[in-house]
Amino acid sequence: MVIEKVNIPADLKSLSFVELETLAGEIRSLVIETAIKNGGHLAPSLGAVDLTVALHRVFDCPSDKIVWDVGHQAYAHKILTGRKFSFPTMRTAGGLSGFPNRKESEYDAFTVGHSSTSISSALGLAAARKLKNESHKVIAVIGDGSMTGGLAFEGLQNAGHLGLDLLVVLNDNEMFISHKVGAFASYLAKLLTAGSFKKFEDRVEKFFKRLHFWGAQILRVAKRFKVLLFPGMLFEELGFAYLGPVNGHDIKAMTEIFANVKNMKGPILVHLVTKKGKGYAPAEHDPTKYHGLSPSCSSSDNRELTYTQVFGEAMKTLAAEDRMLLAVTAAMSEGTGLADFAREYPERFFDVGIAEQHAVTFAAGLAAGGYRPVCAIYSTFLQRSLDQIIHDVALNELPVIFAIDRAGLVGEDGATHHGTFDLSFLRSAPGLTICAPRNGDELRDMLYSALKWGVPTAIRYPRGGCAQTLARRDFKFVERGKSEILRDGSDVLLAGAGNCARYAFEAADILAETGISAAVMDLKFVKPIDSAAISKFAAKRMPIFVVEENSILGGAGSAVEEELSISNIRAEVIRIAVKDDFITHGPQEFLRDMCGLTPEKIASRVAA
Amino acid sequence: MVIEKVNIPADLKSLSFVELETLAGEIRSLVIETAIKNGGHLAPSLGAVDLTVALHRVFDCPSDKIVWDVGHQAYAHKILTGRKFSFPTMRTAGGLSGFPNRKESEYDAFTVGHSSTSISSALGLAAARKLKNESHKVIAVIGDGSMTGGLAFEGLQNAGHLGLDLLVVLNDNEMFISHKVGAFASYLAKLLTAGSFKKFEDRVEKFFKRLHFWGAQILRVAKRFKVLLFPGMLFEELGFAYLGPVNGHDIKAMTEIFANVKNMKGPILVHLVTKKGKGYAPAEHDPTKYHGLSPSCSSSDNRELTYTQVFGEAMKTLAAEDRMLLAVTAAMSEGTGLADFAREYPERFFDVGIAEQHAVTFAAGLAAGGYRPVCAIYSTFLQRSLDQIIHDVALNELPVIFAIDRAGLVGEDGATHHGTFDLSFLRSAPGLTICAPRNGDELRDMLYSALKWGVPTAIRYPRGGCAQTLARRDFKFVERGKSEILRDGSDVLLAGAGNCARYAFEAADILAETGISAAVMDLKFVKPIDSAAISKFAAKRMPIFVVEENSILGGAGSAVEEELSISNIRAEVIRIAVKDDFITHGPQEFLRDMCGLTPEKIASRVAA
Repeated sequence: MVIEKVNIPADLKSLSFVELETLAGEIRSLVIETAIKNGGHLAPSLGAVDLTVALHRVFDCPSDKIVWDVGHQAYAHKILTGRKFSFPTMRTAGGLSGFPNRKESEYDAFTVGHSSTSISSALGLAAARKLKNESHKVIAVIGDGSMTGGLAFEGLQNAGHLGLDLLVVLNDNEMFISHKVGAFASYLAKLLTAGSFKKFEDRVEKFFKRLHFWGAQILRVAKRFKVLLFPGMLFEELGFAYLGPVNGHDIKAMTEIFANVKNMKGPILVHLVTKKGKGYAPAEHDPTKYHGLSPSCSSSDNRELTYTQVFGEAMKTLAAEDRMLLAVTAAMSEGTGLADFAREYPERFFDVGIAEQHAVTFAAGLAAGGYRPVCAIYSTFLQRSLDQIIHDVALNELPVIFAIDRAGLVGEDGATHHGTFDLSFLRSAPGLTICAPRNGDELRDMLYSALKWGVPTAIRYPRGGCAQTLARRDFKFVERGKSEILRDGSDVLLAGAGNCARYAFEAADILAETGISAAVMDLKFVKPIDSAAISKFAAKRMPIFVVEENSILGGAGSAVEEELSISNIRAEVIRIAVKDDFITHGPQEFLRDMCGLTPEKIASRVAA
Repeated sequence: MVIEKVNIPADLKSLSFVELETLAGEIRSLVIETAIKNGGHLAPSLGAVDLTVALHRVFDCPSDKIVWDVGHQAYAHKILTGRKFSFPTMRTAGGLSGFPNRKESEYDAFTVGHSSTSISSALGLAAARKLKNESHKVIAVIGDGSMTGGLAFEGLQNAGHLGLDLLVVLNDNEMFISHKVGAFASYLAKLLTAGSFKKFEDRVEKFFKRLHFWGAQILRVAKRFKVLLFPGMLFEELGFAYLGPVNGHDIKAMTEIFANVKNMKGPILVHLVTKKGKGYAPAEHDPTKYHGLSPSCSSSDNRELTYTQVFGEAMKTLAAEDRMLLAVTAAMSEGTGLADFAREYPERFFDVGIAEQHAVTFAAGLAAGGYRPVCAIYSTFLQRSLDQIIHDVALNELPVIFAIDRAGLVGEDGATHHGTFDLSFLRSAPGLTICAPRNGDELRDMLYSALKWGVPTAIRYPRGGCAQTLARRDFKFVERGKSEILRDGSDVLLAGAGNCARYAFEAADILAETGISAAVMDLKFVKPIDSAAISKFAAKRMPIFVVEENSILGGAGSAVEEELSISNIRAEVIRIAVKDDFITHGPQEFLRDMCGLTPEKIASRVAA
């Protein structure tokens, strides 16, 4: 096994190309085995194995800095940078993170998980290097999907302006998470048809004049691997020298090209073409299915419907009744459950690519045009749309509905992906209604009712099961701002948001055994909050425990307390919520227990 | 006066080109007179007068929709759309808004104020139009500065992909708010040098083949006005047909070109070249100074230093001592007070253009490279960087310092520009220190101390005076998380954040006259909050009034209450803050009074 000889990147320097190929195969086996067992981003990481080997062969990490965009393609990087023995613990509680993490390794230049950040952060590293008169290399590795994010464009154009030495490796796997969308995708596709490149010959010549010594060297390599220089007009217009497309699975070609661009000056973009899932037939065949896997143990243990499934089904049903209903997603049609809707109503479905800001403002435009767009974005990615929610939706009083999946603790994806801030950052948006369903039926009803409320509305719900194996077929109207009493009680009130209303209900059972009589309220709405209902309990001087899967700062608990305080009602409000910290990765139930959000923990907190 | 004949856009249809020119001059006079009196965005609006006349001559608003990006160039639009008599009330309390506003006129397709949103919202309108089988036109008017925002790129590339009929008018005034930055600016500059366009002749031919009938028509117009077709490769790569550059002050040329592209299919970009401040010599000469004016009455009535001035001076002083200190701004070097710093330390100053997301992630990269970047962004624009603050700065534990100017009520710019949400959306970011100085010296000290704390830190301070005419020259270390008692008292505690600590102090004077003894605390820190100090007052059962210029939902008041609640300390916390609503425009003092934040209002609230 070649992998036995490799512990850190420096160990790659002495290997032959045949050994490097073998090593790539061995890495793939380890990645496949681990991702199938623990869950994880199998297809993206398999596609990036060869380029990772080539990068670490050529560059000298950790003094050279590689910034991985999103980071879900960095498994090979972890294995090659001192973590091959701990790699099987990836995504398990206490084990390696599924993403690069500065705390985990000095080889991880940045802690990442979200899209389109790498060029900006790498440019910052490059600017710092220049100021310090250091000479290490900075490399950003970014996928074609991530390139559609506005932040990547901002980074590209600032990099082109500053002209610092920076290598951007575009890992073009010719598909976004779902599928190609956006003009940028067509543009990349065009770059891949070499026929149209002839006319750029004079540009190439000019390019070489600029390069002096390195020019001749590059030309030789380019000819050898039939790589074209400079067709990437868009990149060139933004100040980048473009080199590609290069076969992203040809380790030898990549190695020579990286070695040659290593000492070129200014911003350079090398365009690699890779195949998602490369080396694992099922993943090559269906890269969307194998993009992100759940841990193998958790996928088979129940038949509970997920909120995502219920949402997708409800969207289809409602669309049949209401021709004004539209769906908008940011490269997450599968993840948000909209794939069926997209097939049935292609003209009413908009996948805007990884562009959460645009998704929201575009939805605002659709709403201003009289339609009822439902904008489905994960909680953690909605952090990127706050300004658009405030400025383009709320201020314009447009009835956009936000379907916020993965709100709360998401599990194995960890700190970069938990949706534990949305209640806090959304609550201050004036005029925004915020609700959280406790099960699948309530999600259906809230979606149905939001179309009738006609105001900007956010519906937030967690990853995973919705406590039902069968959803209702009909819809019930939910009065905006009205909570529901799930259980009467006389000692304390447990008010839960979303799933937490269920946990609170179970906690009340446990408390009953210890002689504490707990009333349970499903808040349903975090804004407007049901002041009248809560006041009744406050009037009885019952302590109010608010339970939520959101940061303890500024969430549902604060909404309850603020409302009572503003209404001049004295009450004791106790928050049971996610502590003010980034939460690690691990199974959802493990994390809920850690955060004190299981029925048992809630009960013991109340009883304390 | 031609303007006497014009009340709505339809009135332009019958005017001769000579009359249109005259009208443009008359509009300019009204704009200059009003903006000098009331303050406002004089230079951008003057630059856009001619293109506005041409647009309204050709298109049929309000059935055709014009979306103005930012909206600070829309004064002529307001005057031409039924608001010429009310225009002199612009930016005054109860008068017209300084920006397009859906509530103000059916001619305002969108309520705007922030940059780079127009292509996305216009595309939404265009998609809605297609679904409804309507045929009106949708036009986005966007400046070259706004084009650097990632959201604009997301919009462009989605528009290119969808291929809907959409006219984007690029109003290229060859300068951003401060000055050209970014590769995109160089790209536009290159488009203006016609010499390099010869090689595109074959492309033009192809283009015309695609256009059929309209092609010949366009070619005629293009030849007449010496306008070039298709040099805008970047736009073309993104799926847009490009037409330009066109003289943006030649009403006749623009009218004919708009009339011709009006019926073209698909996304079209017309590139206009204009001059900021056109028609008013002082503004043409110094467009930065005349970009945004303050009302004439308020600029001369005191010699109080502004927080902005103190910040700029402190940055220069600290930079001389600490070579690791860097400054980052998003096209706001003047506005944030960094212009002098930029001149003295050009290599340590980064203006990234209108790209707030990139500014933050780039700063994170600089910090990861060992530097101490101070990222200066207005509160309202920082809404666009929340995800980058959480994911790239806080999670990475990088000691970026955010200098958040214009936090609180900004005055005449109104609802789109008030910085009344930052405390709410920043508080849940784990590990972020948030402080607010009550005067210039405290701002200096906090900046100085943040460099020593070495943690991600936000310093938020309002627009306008800092209560000092002279700032100290030295710096004092501020202990992180420590408040300051400004005045002892025994009946109530007034705890103020930032300026509000001063207002609270004055309120205590008023209260003393009525026999109420109020202690006053300058919170200094909203996170971590000074739990120990506040607890002492809670222990004495004194009601705690928290005063802040931020939304009442999730701000400093909630920070105080949460901290006490989490520490199991019972206390009565009363929030005196901005109500949960968008606040209108008007003088700062008028708005503070309206929101109950003047010393008098605070005192009467406490006494009630």
